[in-house]
Parts: sequence; C-alpha cells; structure tokens
Amino acid sequence: MKAAADQVKADLDRLLPLLDAELTKPFRAGEAQRLAEAVRYSLEAGGKRVRPVLCLLAAEAVGGTASEALPGALALEYVHTYSLIHDDLPAMDDDDLRRGRPTNHKVYGEGHAILAGDALLTEAFGVLASADLDPIRRAEALALLAEGAGWRGMAGGQALDLEGEKVESYDLDHLRLIHRLKTGALLRASLEIGAVLGGAAAPQRMALRDFGAAIGLAFQIQDDILDATATDADLGKRAGKDAGRGKITYPSLLGLDGARKALSEATETALCHLASLPNRISLAAWAQYLALRAR
Amino acid sequence: MKAAADQVKADLDRLLPLLDAELTKPFRAGEAQRLAEAVRYSLEAGGKRVRPVLCLLAAEAVGGTASEALPGALALEYVHTYSLIHDDLPAMDDDDLRRGRPTNHKVYGEGHAILAGDALLTEAFGVLASADLDPIRRAEALALLAEGAGWRGMAGGQALDLEGEKVESYDLDHLRLIHRLKTGALLRASLEIGAVLGGAAAPQRMALRDFGAAIGLAFQIQDDILDATATDADLGKRAGKDAGRGKITYPSLLGLDGARKALSEATETALCHLASLPNRISLAAWAQYLALRAR
Repeated sequence: MKAAADQVKADLDRLLPLLDAELTKPFRAGEAQRLAEAVRYSLEAGGKRVRPVLCLLAAEAVGGTASEALPGALALEYVHTYSLIHDDLPAMDDDDLRRGRPTNHKVYGEGHAILAGDALLTEAFGVLASADLDPIRRAEALALLAEGAGWRGMAGGQALDLEGEKVESYDLDHLRLIHRLKTGALLRASLEIGAVLGGAAAPQRMALRDFGAAIGLAFQIQDDILDATATDADLGKRAGKDAGRGKITYPSLLGLDGARKALSEATETALCHLASLPNRISLAAWAQYLALRAR
Repeated sequence: MKAAADQVKADLDRLLPLLDAELTKPFRAGEAQRLAEAVRYSLEAGGKRVRPVLCLLAAEAVGGTASEALPGALALEYVHTYSLIHDDLPAMDDDDLRRGRPTNHKVYGEGHAILAGDALLTEAFGVLASADLDPIRRAEALALLAEGAGWRGMAGGQALDLEGEKVESYDLDHLRLIHRLKTGALLRASLEIGAVLGGAAAPQRMALRDFGAAIGLAFQIQDDILDATATDADLGKRAGKDAGRGKITYPSLLGLDGARKALSEATETALCHLASLPNRISLAAWAQYLALRAR
C-alpha cells in the first residue's frame, strides 16, 4: 500500500499542475460575472480530481500523452462539479457543506447554483468540441461524455436515487443499478475517453471501460463505508447522513464486514482488467489507493 | 402578411413531421423511466419549434438539406426545452403554467425537473456528437451550441436577468445585453448551426448569424409586448407577470408604441441580412411572421 500511495502522489504532482493551469480559464472574461464566480467557487473547492486524473492516466496507459487527453479531463471535471452542485440543492440531497465549505447554493443562491451547474455541463462539451484534436476521436469522446452523464448514466442514477429514498423494499441489485448509473457511468466514461483520446485499440478501450466500472463500484462501497464510520471533520461534510435518513447503503445491506469484502473483490476485478495494457502501474496504484483511501 | 403566414404554414407542414419523428427517440428505452417521462412531458408540450425549424431553414437557405441539419435541430430543441424547465423552477421565474399545462416541477417535483433539464442539455450534445455527419462540421456545430447555451450565452443571460430583478436602475443597454444573451444567443446559434451543417460559405454563415441576432431581438420585444397586452388564455401562461413584479421590459422603458417601433426596426434589419442568400423566401417569411405573431 505504501508503494501505491507513493505512485499516486507522484502522478498527482505531475498531472495536477496541467489541470490547474486550464481549469477555470473558460470562466473568466464575459458579462455574467456573478455566475462565473459561482462556477469558479465550486471548481476551486479542491476536490480530489479523480476523474480527470484517471482520464489522463488512461491515455498514458495505452501509449498516448496526457496533453492530448487534457480537454477530455477538463470536461470530466466540469461534469463532475456540475453534478455536485445540483445534487447538493434543497430539492435533491439538501446539503449545506461540501469539501468543508458552504455548498454553492448556500453562497450564491439556488437560482445561480442551478445555472452554475448548467454552465459547467455546457462548457464540458464546449471545451472538448473546440479542442484541437483529431475530429473522429473528439466526436467519440463527446458521445461517450454524453452517454456517461445523461439520463442513461449519471443523471438517471441520481433520479433513481431520489426515488429510492421513498422506496420501502430495496435490494442489492437495485443498489448496484443506481451506483452503476450514478457513480459508475462517469468513471467508466473517464477511462474510456482517456483511452480514445490516447489512441487506444478496441480491446484496450474495452479493458479500460471495464476497469472503470469496477473501480466505480469500489469507490461507491468505500464512500458508504466512510459515511457509516467517519466523523464530520474527517469527511468535510455531514457524516452518518445516509443512515440518519434511513438510506440503503452497502453497510446497511451487507454489514460493515460484508461491505469491506465486496470492496476488496471489486478492486481485484479492476486490477485483472489492466493485465493487457502496456503502462498499467499508475492505474493499478490508483485502484488500490481509492479502495483504501482514508480521506 | 397573408403570404408570410402561408409560407410559414407550408414550411411547418413539411418540417415538423421530420422533427416529431425523432424528437423523443433518445428518451425511451432505459432504466430511469420516471426521468424519461418527465423529459418527454416537456418535449411533447407542443411548443412552436422555432429554433429547430429556423435551423433546418438555414441549411436549406445555403443550398443544403433539412435532413443533414436534423441532428442540430433536435439539439436546439433539447437545449430550449431544458432552459424552459429550469427557468420555470421556484428558484428562478417560479411559474406554474407553461403552454397551458402545469410546469414540469409541478408534475414531477423539483428534483426530477432539475434532472430532466440536465438530461436534455446532455442529450443535445449527445445527439449531435453521435450523428453521422462530416466530423468537421459536426465539431463546429457542437462548439456553436456550447457557445450559445453556456455562460457567455443563454445561461449567462438568465443569470443577469435574475440579478436584474433586484437592480433598481436599469437602462435600455442593460436590457439589450440580457436579451442578446438570454434569447439572442441560442437563436443566433440556431441559424449558424443550420448554416454550418448545410455547408455554408463563411459570408453566408455570418449573414445568417446576424439574421439570427436581429430576429432574436424582435422576438424578445414581441414577447414583452404580448405579456403587457395579452390575457392568460392568449398566452397559455400568466400574463402581465413582468409588470406585476416590476420587471423592466421594452414597453415599460419605451412605451407600447416605442416598443412596436423597435420591433419593426429589428425585423427590417433581419430582412436586410438575407439579401445575399440563394433561398431566402422561407426565412424572410418567418422574420415577418415572428414579429407579428398573435399567438
């Protein structure tokens, strides 16, 4: 595990400056300055940048470069950030804190928070569409982004999750479906977009897509475990919130030990999918790190 | 005017079936069925389809075909519909009625209405990205859509409009800025996307962009005039709402006669921009029709 953490740190030191240099650039000069400020507030809240970094590493894993995958990485972070802003709204998960700071609508109001999410989602496609990339790869990446973020992916998962809070009986299959859409679809897209922009052959692309699905599952189980065991200060948001509202989670369905077992199985599956890739060290380290992250 | 109305009717009879056959197709098979239903509810509310029809006519005006511009037309209607759903939310314009029916959030709840808008915005880019079109034209259309819909366009205009309700002094320049972004940017994009997908040369593309800007202005002035003079039954939504909340409009700044004069000037400007196009009859009829529509 020490080796995995070191590898992750080395990758972050190398890749985060690339991202940070570009991240807020599309949200500077323009007339709607308060809206741009709301967008930058959430972009600059300092998340873990998991999706963009995995996208860049996927491009490298198939022999491409981080810089050719950069527009895809930015697009993924914009989509992820928009989803956090909208999910935090009173009509959705109704959260006041995110990454230890007041949520977007607490600072800018609900109207601007909705529009900040809309603007980020739009710019995600804009930054990819106007990038200087091979037009075929660019179109494929755009289609993958729409698939991962849309109603058959992330947005659909969030809708099912909202509905689920009212559902009485709820089994593991339904929980898996929700997570496959809500968290898994965009993580899968992160890897596959990186693969496409890095010039992957079809089997590598499929392997990275499957890797993304497996770590998406691992990520969600770990999130549930953390929520069940951590304190507010650990998480930078309200802990125990899921249990408090009677929400079904992996620990509530499988017990804490059962959830930990499911987590380690998902991580093993993820690692298997990397076997055929030329440069797999960084992604393997990330899979191990994500599953065990203490936050 | 009779001739313009006949031409518009003939174009609608020809083009609406193309649109209607495809409009809800991406929102059928999938897991999040309640979300898809919410999306279809608003798509099937039967708007005037102004943006997609103008997009198709722009393609024809430069010698292209409606079918090659169809993915762009669908994308524009998805973006327009998402913007209506989000604008109607309590945190924004707080409307209960739209096109004579309860607004999306009144039927499906705020959470699903936010997600239905998000899903439509995402699919707008998805339908264009996965269309079987020349990759260069497709990428240009995607970039134009993002520019028209995003924070430097429509979303930014809506933010300024929200802020404007709290601004005490407010002049014609500021009103024009808001409308240029909120309504004008997407109408401009509708024409320019049609031009690009129809294979326009650069000067034709610019002419259609300018035409779009002028009819966008005309459209907004007419909207304000209708709000000030019509009844609920005429509009299918609450009339006199703008005046009721002390919102600044063209009639409130210029008087009703002044607003009508500004409307006819904008329409004249629009018609001038069509002079160089090979097939301009339909677009000219639309400009005249939009400015004088009685709804």
